[in-house]
Amino acid sequence: MNKIIIINGPNLNLLGEREQSQYGSTSFDQLKNNCETEAKRLGVQINFVQSNIEGEIVDFIQDARNNYDAIIINAAGFTHTSVAIRDALDIFKKPIIELHISNIYKREDFRKKSLISDVVTGGIFGLGTEGYILAIIKLHKMLQNENK
Amino acid sequence: MNKIIIINGPNLNLLGEREQSQYGSTSFDQLKNNCETEAKRLGVQINFVQSNIEGEIVDFIQDARNNYDAIIINAAGFTHTSVAIRDALDIFKKPIIELHISNIYKREDFRKKSLISDVVTGGIFGLGTEGYILAIIKLHKMLQNENK
Amino acid sequence: MNKIIIINGPNLNLLGEREQSQYGSTSFDQLKNNCETEAKRLGVQINFVQSNIEGEIVDFIQDARNNYDAIIINAAGFTHTSVAIRDALDIFKKPIIELHISNIYKREDFRKKSLISDVVTGGIFGLGTEGYILAIIKLHKMLQNENK
Amino acid sequence: MNKIIIINGPNLNLLGEREQSQYGSTSFDQLKNNCETEAKRLGVQINFVQSNIEGEIVDFIQDARNNYDAIIINAAGFTHTSVAIRDALDIFKKPIIELHISNIYKREDFRKKSLISDVVTGGIFGLGTEGYILAIIKLHKMLQNENK
Amino acid sequence: MNKIIIINGPNLNLLGEREQSQYGSTSFDQLKNNCETEAKRLGVQINFVQSNIEGEIVDFIQDARNNYDAIIINAAGFTHTSVAIRDALDIFKKPIIELHISNIYKREDFRKKSLISDVVTGGIFGLGTEGYILAIIKLHKMLQNENK
Amino acid sequence: MNKIIIINGPNLNLLGEREQSQYGSTSFDQLKNNCETEAKRLGVQINFVQSNIEGEIVDFIQDARNNYDAIIINAAGFTHTSVAIRDALDIFKKPIIELHISNIYKREDFRKKSLISDVVTGGIFGLGTEGYILAIIKLHKMLQNENK
Amino acid sequence: MNKIIIINGPNLNLLGEREQSQYGSTSFDQLKNNCETEAKRLGVQINFVQSNIEGEIVDFIQDARNNYDAIIINAAGFTHTSVAIRDALDIFKKPIIELHISNIYKREDFRKKSLISDVVTGGIFGLGTEGYILAIIKLHKMLQNENK
Amino acid sequence: MNKIIIINGPNLNLLGEREQSQYGSTSFDQLKNNCETEAKRLGVQINFVQSNIEGEIVDFIQDARNNYDAIIINAAGFTHTSVAIRDALDIFKKPIIELHISNIYKREDFRKKSLISDVVTGGIFGLGTEGYILAIIKLHKMLQNENK
Amino acid sequence: MNKIIIINGPNLNLLGEREQSQYGSTSFDQLKNNCETEAKRLGVQINFVQSNIEGEIVDFIQDARNNYDAIIINAAGFTHTSVAIRDALDIFKKPIIELHISNIYKREDFRKKSLISDVVTGGIFGLGTEGYILAIIKLHKMLQNENK
Amino acid sequence: MNKIIIINGPNLNLLGEREQSQYGSTSFDQLKNNCETEAKRLGVQINFVQSNIEGEIVDFIQDARNNYDAIIINAAGFTHTSVAIRDALDIFKKPIIELHISNIYKREDFRKKSLISDVVTGGIFGLGTEGYILAIIKLHKMLQNENK
Amino acid sequence: MNKIIIINGPNLNLLGEREQSQYGSTSFDQLKNNCETEAKRLGVQINFVQSNIEGEIVDFIQDARNNYDAIIINAAGFTHTSVAIRDALDIFKKPIIELHISNIYKREDFRKKSLISDVVTGGIFGLGTEGYILAIIKLHKMLQNENK
Amino acid sequence: MNKIIIINGPNLNLLGEREQSQYGSTSFDQLKNNCETEAKRLGVQINFVQSNIEGEIVDFIQDARNNYDAIIINAAGFTHTSVAIRDALDIFKKPIIELHISNIYKREDFRKKSLISDVVTGGIFGLGTEGYILAIIKLHKMLQNENK
Repeated sequence: MNKIIIINGPNLNLLGEREQSQYGSTSFDQLKNNCETEAKRLGVQINFVQSNIEGEIVDFIQDARNNYDAIIINAAGFTHTSVAIRDALDIFKKPIIELHISNIYKREDFRKKSLISDVVTGGIFGLGTEGYILAIIKLHKMLQNENK
Repeated sequence: MNKIIIINGPNLNLLGEREQSQYGSTSFDQLKNNCETEAKRLGVQINFVQSNIEGEIVDFIQDARNNYDAIIINAAGFTHTSVAIRDALDIFKKPIIELHISNIYKREDFRKKSLISDVVTGGIFGLGTEGYILAIIKLHKMLQNENK
Repeated sequence: MNKIIIINGPNLNLLGEREQSQYGSTSFDQLKNNCETEAKRLGVQINFVQSNIEGEIVDFIQDARNNYDAIIINAAGFTHTSVAIRDALDIFKKPIIELHISNIYKREDFRKKSLISDVVTGGIFGLGTEGYILAIIKLHKMLQNENK
Repeated sequence: MNKIIIINGPNLNLLGEREQSQYGSTSFDQLKNNCETEAKRLGVQINFVQSNIEGEIVDFIQDARNNYDAIIINAAGFTHTSVAIRDALDIFKKPIIELHISNIYKREDFRKKSLISDVVTGGIFGLGTEGYILAIIKLHKMLQNENK
Repeated sequence: MNKIIIINGPNLNLLGEREQSQYGSTSFDQLKNNCETEAKRLGVQINFVQSNIEGEIVDFIQDARNNYDAIIINAAGFTHTSVAIRDALDIFKKPIIELHISNIYKREDFRKKSLISDVVTGGIFGLGTEGYILAIIKLHKMLQNENK
Repeated sequence: MNKIIIINGPNLNLLGEREQSQYGSTSFDQLKNNCETEAKRLGVQINFVQSNIEGEIVDFIQDARNNYDAIIINAAGFTHTSVAIRDALDIFKKPIIELHISNIYKREDFRKKSLISDVVTGGIFGLGTEGYILAIIKLHKMLQNENK
Repeated sequence: MNKIIIINGPNLNLLGEREQSQYGSTSFDQLKNNCETEAKRLGVQINFVQSNIEGEIVDFIQDARNNYDAIIINAAGFTHTSVAIRDALDIFKKPIIELHISNIYKREDFRKKSLISDVVTGGIFGLGTEGYILAIIKLHKMLQNENK
Repeated sequence: MNKIIIINGPNLNLLGEREQSQYGSTSFDQLKNNCETEAKRLGVQINFVQSNIEGEIVDFIQDARNNYDAIIINAAGFTHTSVAIRDALDIFKKPIIELHISNIYKREDFRKKSLISDVVTGGIFGLGTEGYILAIIKLHKMLQNENK
Repeated sequence: MNKIIIINGPNLNLLGEREQSQYGSTSFDQLKNNCETEAKRLGVQINFVQSNIEGEIVDFIQDARNNYDAIIINAAGFTHTSVAIRDALDIFKKPIIELHISNIYKREDFRKKSLISDVVTGGIFGLGTEGYILAIIKLHKMLQNENK
Repeated sequence: MNKIIIINGPNLNLLGEREQSQYGSTSFDQLKNNCETEAKRLGVQINFVQSNIEGEIVDFIQDARNNYDAIIINAAGFTHTSVAIRDALDIFKKPIIELHISNIYKREDFRKKSLISDVVTGGIFGLGTEGYILAIIKLHKMLQNENK
Repeated sequence: MNKIIIINGPNLNLLGEREQSQYGSTSFDQLKNNCETEAKRLGVQINFVQSNIEGEIVDFIQDARNNYDAIIINAAGFTHTSVAIRDALDIFKKPIIELHISNIYKREDFRKKSLISDVVTGGIFGLGTEGYILAIIKLHKMLQNENK
Repeated sequence: MNKIIIINGPNLNLLGEREQSQYGSTSFDQLKNNCETEAKRLGVQINFVQSNIEGEIVDFIQDARNNYDAIIINAAGFTHTSVAIRDALDIFKKPIIELHISNIYKREDFRKKSLISDVVTGGIFGLGTEGYILAIIKLHKMLQNENK
């Protein structure tokens, strides 16, 4: 069974409490449940984690090299500042999808530059928490094709 | 039945013939078929169009205001240069998904700036032609929710 | 009788339907009528045209060299991107007034740079659709002085 | 009767003596007369002032808050450097037209950036001293509409 | 017999009428004749086309993929703004020469940046309309060598 | 008794009348009273002045060299444009506090750069008119320590 | 009783040992004592914390949402690099004062840009460790007013 | 007898009191005397003036058009910020020498850009107060040659 | 006996597994051994540490102030983003060598700017893992000279 | 007989040995022979020189003023850095062709800016060593026309 | 007797032949004579040299350290490009005057930045060849004062 | 026996006489001796050269292609300005070490950008003249490994 880790960056644990106009009303736990439901439907195993500490996210990614087939990463505020996360992702040689719940291009200028976009397979932005579901669907298909 | 127009910009008619490492081997006609198959499965009506002329794309978008419920747009080279397309999209007050087959952030610098990202609902990049399918799935769900 | 061509760029055909706070409630047809009424009052002949296609606007301008005494141009989105329109205007050796209905300096940064301002005689911005009337009055006076 | 103050910035008192190719041959006093004639024709009261001192122009604008219905301002060299004038204009909550006799976009780079354009209603540039007349006509109409 | 298409961008149809100090006095038709004469001398077949519409030039280039052995392109104003033309040229896998009649480096700053220079084989600028003749000579030699 | 001059720049005389969301409802005269009350409480002598003219503010600062022990300066719009005020402050060799009523970092970009910050002792921004009171308290302590 | 958390960023634990010309001779423990003394005097409860780890500071701020009425933050080196801290502060909907002991505008260029200034209420810089005391005084007054 | 006006900008009245390492120990009055002594030696008439107010310096320059044969200007802090002074100098059609006592290129970055250098005849910097004497010598020779 | 701490930043624990063309085939443990061997040879005591967490690296450096005579730091991804590490290094008043295994100037633009280079003694880049050995040799000599 | 000097800059003496993918396999001597052969065919006299020393190239150009009718210059690395060569070329008042063997726009960024392009008649890039032949043909025609 | 070396950079040997509107009609030899005449008058010994080769100018400056009391340098084109000349001047610990015959601020942008201005004592620009005479007068006085 | 050439750029011949705080007190001849001693110890042959002329350094590098196994280059002031030296180094296909005695990142901004860093193997900066010894040690090891 294919295994995907979904890594969430700083402040995403507050999802649903924070700026609902920007991020919607789905809470962090609901999002986790939604992802697990979809994963079960498709027959994929997922691990849904969060940290406010840059180095722990680097650890998640390093650890994923041996234990997961793909990564979905919403690096939140670290998207724009962390070369360390970028380097860790770059070492990971399997599919990665970059995810942003809000449309980062409608926000402050410093959010328009992602340090990780050019080391991921592709990305989804602005489609709300459902972007996570689309990412799981896509990775499921990619991994199925590889396994054929 | 919900109606979606899928608008493709310059040179996308050559899909499959052009830089397969960048864009994959799916041809333009196959992509059209794939979209139509998915649309049929979901019960959505789609129109799949292409033009090399900026003004014709503006016309497609203006026309969509009365005739479609959502837009998927891959503006290709015009993504980075057309204020006219941006203005037309900005007038369209329903869901829009920006789509790029390749990961534009792995390419030339001038491709990293999109003039339309901040007037669309959200976007998908680098997930190959399957990004179109994900976009149709997402818009289908959004339109269903609105109709409830 | 002096002849003026009034050239309108992309999306201006939707005037009155689009962002009324920005552009006012006058429709495109009403604007055309207002201009024709003022022209008749002054004894000037006008031609009021619109296109979403950059090259057609170049054609209008090239054609104006032999058939019109002056140009009023609202290049809309092409104002900021079209070197071709700029070159065409630069070849036209008679009076040109650049026109913007809204105050482009209150809007996005990319709208603050006009590629044509330094090849026109002068310009009017932010005075609503009535800017067209002022432009006609001014050109009428300029052309009268030349004819003396 | 509506009252308009026309505020002129540094060196405009030398109009007609200075670079006639740029500014035309109309003298400062003639311009004042032309404006007063047009104002009389329309039934508007105007006050035509000039100063080389930035702070005096701020004073004119502050004073206009209680005593005038609209401002026409040609801030000349202060257009590009004065945040103080900008702030004063921003406090004035009635119509303002920015005016430049010459086409500032055909001149030095530092003249292409106006610090006040985004706090005025609209502007006129490059139409010679007659730009003042057009501005008076426009403000007259705006004020008439408000009074209705 | 080798076949070359010579594609001319916006406003080049006015050659000879426009700024003779910049572009010389040769008219567009004379230039076409000069090219055809040289082509006949060398035994090359040429097609000499022009359009003011960006998308039509994209069409010319797409069409050339199957019907021509080389392209000479003077994209004029589109040189500096069209990613769509650049993309089309990039798909064309045979020799391309970029051509400018005037020395674009002696002109406005925005003309100093070409979007297509890095996807062409080489270029000629500032050598007048005779640059076309030199380009035909060069392509003729290149194609002859390939055919050997 | 220690003596502090509080220098206010252009448009601050309109405090309380202007954008209350930005500057609060305290009027200029109330602010003056509040400062004088606090000064009396602490046993400090203050002089509270305002000018719209850059050169007069330079004069205030030059004059302070011999007559005051410290400066509180809210240069308003001159903060971002006046090298002359900066030079005058730089010559003053005693404590200076830069003051802004509003949070200038939440406003336009050109307000984010202060020409005087690196020649003052320190600064207070965004704490409303009460920032003046805090500045008086701080300078009072500094001057007391010096006098010991 | 109102509760304020005072959050100190990296290297501030070395206060008093480090560059005394820049930061003064007060040690970190003395500063803590000074703040506690002032708090006791005013009847405010404070918590004085420090961390070298960005994510722990994010945790402090997230935790403050439910447990404190206001934040004083001296983010030190993270001021200029942490979008994560900025985002956490932005979620906190009560008063925040940004604090810098030294005058950051007299130092290296990269210290002149704060990522958090536009999400705080206001700030104090360059007034030494006494800036903390002024911040406590100010927050105390703000919270008292709210409680009225 | 030739007449030269020597115009000094803000804070130069404090010469000799201010940063002697930068400006030397000559006082403003001594400098004035030195200039007058040299002028007398050469048989030139000079007027030595100073103002802290930008607009007064504009007035000095405007007035010089009819009353002086040349200008020596040390615009001090206005050198880098005043378009109004630049415009006034540009209208003056006789010799102008720009003067700086200190070497402005050894100082802050914002002092390295002069707004007036390209409208003066030439300039002298960093040669101390004696630069004034050299400027008088040079203008004396220029005016003598013109009078021949 | 002199004591040196060798501090390694994020992802360096994966050395040897990661991009061998860039970093060579020496593993992290081998590198540690090589350093210890050289240290033993020279009679220096070393401590070889690594962390993915920025704040832990700050802790290592703070701790080194009392316990080590010199630092060798390869801050990896934090080189380009961490003001906190820079500040910690700046407080350390003994020799520091900055180290990069690869030639960072042959890589992405954002790797060309180091935030720490101007607070270290010197640096070595692009000489592979042997750069560590050279750094130990150099520090050994420096410390010996100091001890003389 | 017309005389042309062909001036080659640094490292061009290694042509054929260096990066053949970039510069082709023609050696420096072969290139010289090719040019001489073409010159003989056309009846032009050429001098083919090379230097690694900037000042010697300035000398070649200064000397050409009296002894040659035209210059072909491939300044190689000096193209992007030498104001001295630019000034020398600018003094030469006869035809100059700038030549680059490779397409400099496909290479490093610093090679995309030529300091000499705006003082030459025109240029040829990316057409290999045959660009020299085309340049000789063009200059031959230009000089013939002048001699008529 | 004091000794001054006057060092002239590339192309200055052509003075008088080159762009007389920019540089005047004085030839290089006349300028040398003028300087020698003035030197004799003042009792100073001068050496007047020129080179087109950057390294030779470095040699002149290095040699001057032991053999001359002051330098006048007109580095011409090297002014804007040579760090080597700057470094050599920086080592020279006696007075240096930078000289430009023309007003470099009225010319191309790249001439507005001098790499040597902040390592010289002061400078003179735009005062024609007479600037050399003024520089000799000034250095003579400086050296006399030192010798007192 | 392996052969290394050590190439020194402009002004390095003055080592020891110049800014000892920056460069130390070792003279150029002592440095040469130190290098030769180390080379003898390791059994490497070195040639230690210096020039102030850019083109001569290009000659040294070109010549090294056939006569040396490695280069150590301290290009001094040419590091930041010479594309010609860069190109010559790029042609040299064996190991190159870039060397700077001082820490160039603690100095002027223009010294922070090296034009050669991305065409060398690696570099050493800020470790004083002993950097040369480390470079010889490193190259000796590299060459030994190649010879195995």
